[in-house]
Amino acid sequence: MKIKITFLGTSQAVPTATRNHTAIHISYANENILVDCGEGTQRQFRKAKINPCKLTRILITHWHGDHVLGLPGLLQTLALNNYNKTLHIYGPLGTKDSLDKIMDTFVFVSRDQLKLSIHEVPDGLVFETPDFFVEARKMHHGIACLAYRFVEKDRVKLDKKKFTRYGLSESPILKVLKEKGKIKWKGKTIRLEQVSKIVKGRKIALILDTKLNKNCYEIAKNADLLICEATYSQEDAEKAKEYKHLTAKEAAEIAKKAKAKKLILTHISQRYEKKEEILLKEAKKIFRNTSIAKDLEKIEV
Amino acid sequence: MKIKITFLGTSQAVPTATRNHTAIHISYANENILVDCGEGTQRQFRKAKINPCKLTRILITHWHGDHVLGLPGLLQTLALNNYNKTLHIYGPLGTKDSLDKIMDTFVFVSRDQLKLSIHEVPDGLVFETPDFFVEARKMHHGIACLAYRFVEKDRVKLDKKKFTRYGLSESPILKVLKEKGKIKWKGKTIRLEQVSKIVKGRKIALILDTKLNKNCYEIAKNADLLICEATYSQEDAEKAKEYKHLTAKEAAEIAKKAKAKKLILTHISQRYEKKEEILLKEAKKIFRNTSIAKDLEKIEV
Repeated sequence: MKIKITFLGTSQAVPTATRNHTAIHISYANENILVDCGEGTQRQFRKAKINPCKLTRILITHWHGDHVLGLPGLLQTLALNNYNKTLHIYGPLGTKDSLDKIMDTFVFVSRDQLKLSIHEVPDGLVFETPDFFVEARKMHHGIACLAYRFVEKDRVKLDKKKFTRYGLSESPILKVLKEKGKIKWKGKTIRLEQVSKIVKGRKIALILDTKLNKNCYEIAKNADLLICEATYSQEDAEKAKEYKHLTAKEAAEIAKKAKAKKLILTHISQRYEKKEEILLKEAKKIFRNTSIAKDLEKIEV
Repeated sequence: MKIKITFLGTSQAVPTATRNHTAIHISYANENILVDCGEGTQRQFRKAKINPCKLTRILITHWHGDHVLGLPGLLQTLALNNYNKTLHIYGPLGTKDSLDKIMDTFVFVSRDQLKLSIHEVPDGLVFETPDFFVEARKMHHGIACLAYRFVEKDRVKLDKKKFTRYGLSESPILKVLKEKGKIKWKGKTIRLEQVSKIVKGRKIALILDTKLNKNCYEIAKNADLLICEATYSQEDAEKAKEYKHLTAKEAAEIAKKAKAKKLILTHISQRYEKKEEILLKEAKKIFRNTSIAKDLEKIEV
């Protein structure tokens, strides 16, 4: 199964002509997950030709305006388009109260028209499906803030080379073997591990607003893809500290230390509007397989 | 002086790939006025190459999400860009409370960083400058809702043909005449009205969400330009009534009855995404000088 990622928005607090506020869409099997929902996200859905009514879950990293101002409009549009599932929204402590406030302030559809299930996540497991789980780690950004990690479960895959050795072919008996873990076959017991291999699950880590902290390495550990904020270049390392953000260099150091395979920088500040190569160069010196996200860019992991 | 109008957003509740939520920018002399501020408006400013820090006033027609969800983000961006004037925000009764709520829910800059002056307008005069005034009339849209009208004051303009008859030339004495209303010249009293003409001020009316009501004709009376919502075509006249909106036909009837010179339809629903000519044809049958607004379109009156 493919994991499809669409960058719906990649700007820092102030959007530019080419970058909308932060929102990342992850599609996997029947799940469509939105990470953060900056202002204008519902229109980015239109431009990316993704139907927002297929959303199953929304993960909020933190409640700063540039990460959540698109929520009321998106929820309103879902209601207007007769969204009929239960939408699960996850976020740090305080999420229930913040969501209550925006629903009261803005959304003009009746709250009963949308089935929302709000989950406050202190840290750790966010939710789990048969195929994958999402976990969160606390970040340091002045307010309650989480980084997320999408973890596909390792899969047991039958190995044709191995099972044909036992005279087994691709028949219903293999299904039984996979389900039960062992079968009797021509008088012998065959165990699943004798005829299969483990396909390692993929990992995608998302670190949005934070200053550098040890949980960054943990959430990014062995990630096939690390999507990481890089609000400043190293020249403005002092500002990054003051406003509790990462530099491109720090993002690359996290990727390197965590042994990630690929790094995509996002949450790009307007100050780099015509000189984004500064961020890219700085990161690539430390972690070669780095790129900078573009709005509406789609990638597969 | 030119009156420059920029359509920053022209969609109804749900934006499309080509239409953002409602926002209209009016520029005149030193005043830059924003009428409504739907989600994504701050980015539309960037695309239209208009500096939002030059804003002097914001007029809100009503507090439905699609007309105001861009406010917190815009205010945040103004604060981040060191906006240093007092920003006047006008809206119907309830505006103070609604603005308080959004500032509390979202904006992460300190409220002290922005000098806001909030004015609740029941009906009538909104504000006045030496050159023009803005007035409001109550609309019918289920919640407190206003239509606005920008009225340039009539100007007295010296008429060269007339003043040369009295042996006056374009000298400082004319300035005195204009200021004092009369002068003594070669033994005679010359009054301003003898050597001048009246240049009629221009009028721009903005009717956003409402069902048809008598105040529509009043606010649009003799407008050089009427900008009017046309959420439905006449085929959906029942829906227009139910949701308290206008049809394109009704917008044209307002323009005709009010003797407006030009009509621009806006607040276009996604249902007409590929067949907007339905709305245009319907309106043109009744009022020929009609067009449909496009996002980022700039016009001068």
